[in-house]
Amino acid sequence: MNLLVSRDVQPENSVVRVGDVAFGDGGFVVMAGPCSVENEEQLMACAEVIADCGGQLLRGGAFKPRTSPYEFQGLGEPGLKLLELARERYGLGIVTEVVTEGDVDLVANYADLMQVGARNMQNFALLKALGRCGKPVLLKRGPSATLKEWLMAAEYILASGNPDVVLCERGIRSFDSHTRNVCDITAVPAMKEMTHLPVILDPSHATGRRSLVAPLARAAVAVGADGLLVECHPNPDQALSDGPQSLDLIQFRELMMTLPCRILKA
Amino acid sequence: MNLLVSRDVQPENSVVRVGDVAFGDGGFVVMAGPCSVENEEQLMACAEVIADCGGQLLRGGAFKPRTSPYEFQGLGEPGLKLLELARERYGLGIVTEVVTEGDVDLVANYADLMQVGARNMQNFALLKALGRCGKPVLLKRGPSATLKEWLMAAEYILASGNPDVVLCERGIRSFDSHTRNVCDITAVPAMKEMTHLPVILDPSHATGRRSLVAPLARAAVAVGADGLLVECHPNPDQALSDGPQSLDLIQFRELMMTLPCRILKA
Amino acid sequence: MNLLVSRDVQPENSVVRVGDVAFGDGGFVVMAGPCSVENEEQLMACAEVIADCGGQLLRGGAFKPRTSPYEFQGLGEPGLKLLELARERYGLGIVTEVVTEGDVDLVANYADLMQVGARNMQNFALLKALGRCGKPVLLKRGPSATLKEWLMAAEYILASGNPDVVLCERGIRSFDSHTRNVCDITAVPAMKEMTHLPVILDPSHATGRRSLVAPLARAAVAVGADGLLVECHPNPDQALSDGPQSLDLIQFRELMMTLPCRILKA
Amino acid sequence: MNLLVSRDVQPENSVVRVGDVAFGDGGFVVMAGPCSVENEEQLMACAEVIADCGGQLLRGGAFKPRTSPYEFQGLGEPGLKLLELARERYGLGIVTEVVTEGDVDLVANYADLMQVGARNMQNFALLKALGRCGKPVLLKRGPSATLKEWLMAAEYILASGNPDVVLCERGIRSFDSHTRNVCDITAVPAMKEMTHLPVILDPSHATGRRSLVAPLARAAVAVGADGLLVECHPNPDQALSDGPQSLDLIQFRELMMTLPCRILKA
Repeated sequence: MNLLVSRDVQPENSVVRVGDVAFGDGGFVVMAGPCSVENEEQLMACAEVIADCGGQLLRGGAFKPRTSPYEFQGLGEPGLKLLELARERYGLGIVTEVVTEGDVDLVANYADLMQVGARNMQNFALLKALGRCGKPVLLKRGPSATLKEWLMAAEYILASGNPDVVLCERGIRSFDSHTRNVCDITAVPAMKEMTHLPVILDPSHATGRRSLVAPLARAAVAVGADGLLVECHPNPDQALSDGPQSLDLIQFRELMMTLPCRILKA
Repeated sequence: MNLLVSRDVQPENSVVRVGDVAFGDGGFVVMAGPCSVENEEQLMACAEVIADCGGQLLRGGAFKPRTSPYEFQGLGEPGLKLLELARERYGLGIVTEVVTEGDVDLVANYADLMQVGARNMQNFALLKALGRCGKPVLLKRGPSATLKEWLMAAEYILASGNPDVVLCERGIRSFDSHTRNVCDITAVPAMKEMTHLPVILDPSHATGRRSLVAPLARAAVAVGADGLLVECHPNPDQALSDGPQSLDLIQFRELMMTLPCRILKA
Repeated sequence: MNLLVSRDVQPENSVVRVGDVAFGDGGFVVMAGPCSVENEEQLMACAEVIADCGGQLLRGGAFKPRTSPYEFQGLGEPGLKLLELARERYGLGIVTEVVTEGDVDLVANYADLMQVGARNMQNFALLKALGRCGKPVLLKRGPSATLKEWLMAAEYILASGNPDVVLCERGIRSFDSHTRNVCDITAVPAMKEMTHLPVILDPSHATGRRSLVAPLARAAVAVGADGLLVECHPNPDQALSDGPQSLDLIQFRELMMTLPCRILKA
Repeated sequence: MNLLVSRDVQPENSVVRVGDVAFGDGGFVVMAGPCSVENEEQLMACAEVIADCGGQLLRGGAFKPRTSPYEFQGLGEPGLKLLELARERYGLGIVTEVVTEGDVDLVANYADLMQVGARNMQNFALLKALGRCGKPVLLKRGPSATLKEWLMAAEYILASGNPDVVLCERGIRSFDSHTRNVCDITAVPAMKEMTHLPVILDPSHATGRRSLVAPLARAAVAVGADGLLVECHPNPDQALSDGPQSLDLIQFRELMMTLPCRILKA
């Protein structure tokens, strides 16, 4: 495979830098925060705990792709401004999703890491625009994308001029509704054999259930992932989206204390 | 389900009109043409046969979403102009894909029926833009979309002001690579129980193999589909995309002669 | 593929005879009956209508493989005796399932066509025993079996000495719970390209919903299936198994009158 | 769920003893060996290394369920005798598969732990016979079985009188052929929430590729599995079955040294 993303072309790991945070240098990056930015109190409560526990980036959605047009669609730019405020207060870089080509410039004004959601993995117009946006990109795997299709989606971004792509496994669609998705944990080492790009895991979407997030987070470390994207919320039962899979802030703190990587990093 | 798309809200079938062609009135509409518009000769050869056999709409892609950035991406606007020329010459309305919100106005200048590809079924920015475009929309099912998610994608278009949506089953992703996708033929009657919108079948993508297109086309009639979207090409072995699933023009003519609906319409 | 089941080895269709009923000769065989044999009244009520409508074989389970050990497991040999009685009264050959190698001789004493259920498609000890049982075999596709695996399962029977195998598509497992399974209707023509064995459809298990059985039955005719296995019951709401997918006897009669093949056979 | 397998009925973990090896007591059991017992040299070479590295049980198939009737079907009873010989020489208990009800007594004469393969997870006659066999059972998950169906299969064994069941996740069938199966690692903690039975992982079948076995084995520890079933072979390239997923003996030794549990157990 003679692709820009391929290890045949670049045998050594790419290191993707987001401010002073590095993906792919052997460390383990924790990104956390609420599914949706809802209001200042909610976001700052998350950011304070994340910063305090050693989380490195704050995630939060201002533009939310939702299955139904009648579900909460995100705060839009006011949500981005709240993320900016959290960065100023707590020193955490910002990861947030961009859902359409037309919003790339707007989101790039606020985000440190531009997230492409699973549903948009093959939104090629968006991928090309992100190739020219000047910010690193977090590319989630589509729910029924093969590894090869996922690599090709990353290739769109690299071929458009942006080498800074982090890949994120977030579960694939399968026949058992016991969990929201099936976490294809094997995709992490399998992708790292094929590509030099960093690969992380989102155990929240991959399982859809709070009680399963911590074991999967530990598995991410075990298989050599470069980091974690995890949802937390001060009051998950009242979250406007993804409550059942969000850790509360005490659970998030516990997770951070039990991740084996924390020991290694000390 | 209190949705605009729901039969509970509107028990009688919606009839979606594309020029003088109607979907949902009990007839069976055949749309055919090449996967990609490649050049004038190719397109006119298709259009001539389609018009002659009783096909009602001409399909052809000018903007092609492709897995790899290095595959043929379509001719763009010059492709749209060729489609316009075919319409003038052969009197066939035009179905063509729009892949991003930013192209909606451009494509709507040429197309009679705006196609949303499977990968974009949950590109909500695109769906909302199509809700305001003033043209009917052909909404393909995503390769791992549930029926409910597909209905909700249609709901985005209706909720944005456009009631004219035709749904298209085109196969779902499964474990067996014998066929390109698994044709979920049951989705046709199952969707028609839930929604008043017309539902058609794309047997070309659903099977990925030329020899299976005609049996599936006949099955579409058998289960009560409102029409067919089928790929044909003057020389499938040299097609720039989807050759293995394209009928040649003789095979297309044979298909048209053996579709049971032809008899009923006579 | 140099297999006994392959069209490369035998280009012409195999005709499998079950009494005076033939599969694979261009006709269309309807097998119907209840999921489980429950009692004499239930079975005879079905048999009478099936015989009257032109159904050719009576199906009914005496040994039922059930997900839970606490569900009704079938009547066992007394169920087989009721099937025998129905054959005497109504002249219908009997199709019934055998679930383990140890029961092959017992079931072969009563059945005209030995059914292998989907869960047992790769029960190789059972397949080998059926290869030596002296009766034709109806081999259902496993819920996650590829076409090649299904062919290989049939090959076990042929390689053990029994050439009389009828293949039955009954739906595969997929991500959408809207229907019980996804009916892989394409498997019918795809298998008939590869093998000379007859292929039929079970629209009851393939959809799991009564209202979808008739459209799928018509699709089976459209794609060239050699027959149908369909569940019916005098009172589906009180069936001990598979009620939601069973037609009542009036619905079964309607189905028989609208199957296009009936006209052709008249 | 008022089932024998349920945590609601028995909140504390079951401990399943195989000789002096215990599953479910908080330790981590490694079972290893070749896919198929091929000959004495092969088996003893494996057993020697496994015993030397701290592996606790020796796996090896004497009865092999194979997709094609023309593939190697196992040595049968002579294979069982070789396993017995290895137990005598190296003190390792024996795990081996039984594929049909009729072989249960024979296999129980040799095995310490009776394996049910994935294809037989719903071979209910076999499960019932194992419920009466007097030996503990290793029950693999079927390739398209839901967690609930898997629990119900275990319930068959318990309900037939045998409480000693160990569950084994071995990958499920999905759309991406990059790996042989998709390892549903989340099934381990998800099952342990629902049942008191021990749950282990088979990373060899779950991935189908040698290079991915060690990361997945470490993930098994991370998610709280009770052990591992792993394939190794003195010369994987010449294995009669499953070569691509078998570790060679040096790789197996490396795996054992890097499993985090080894440290904890010291």
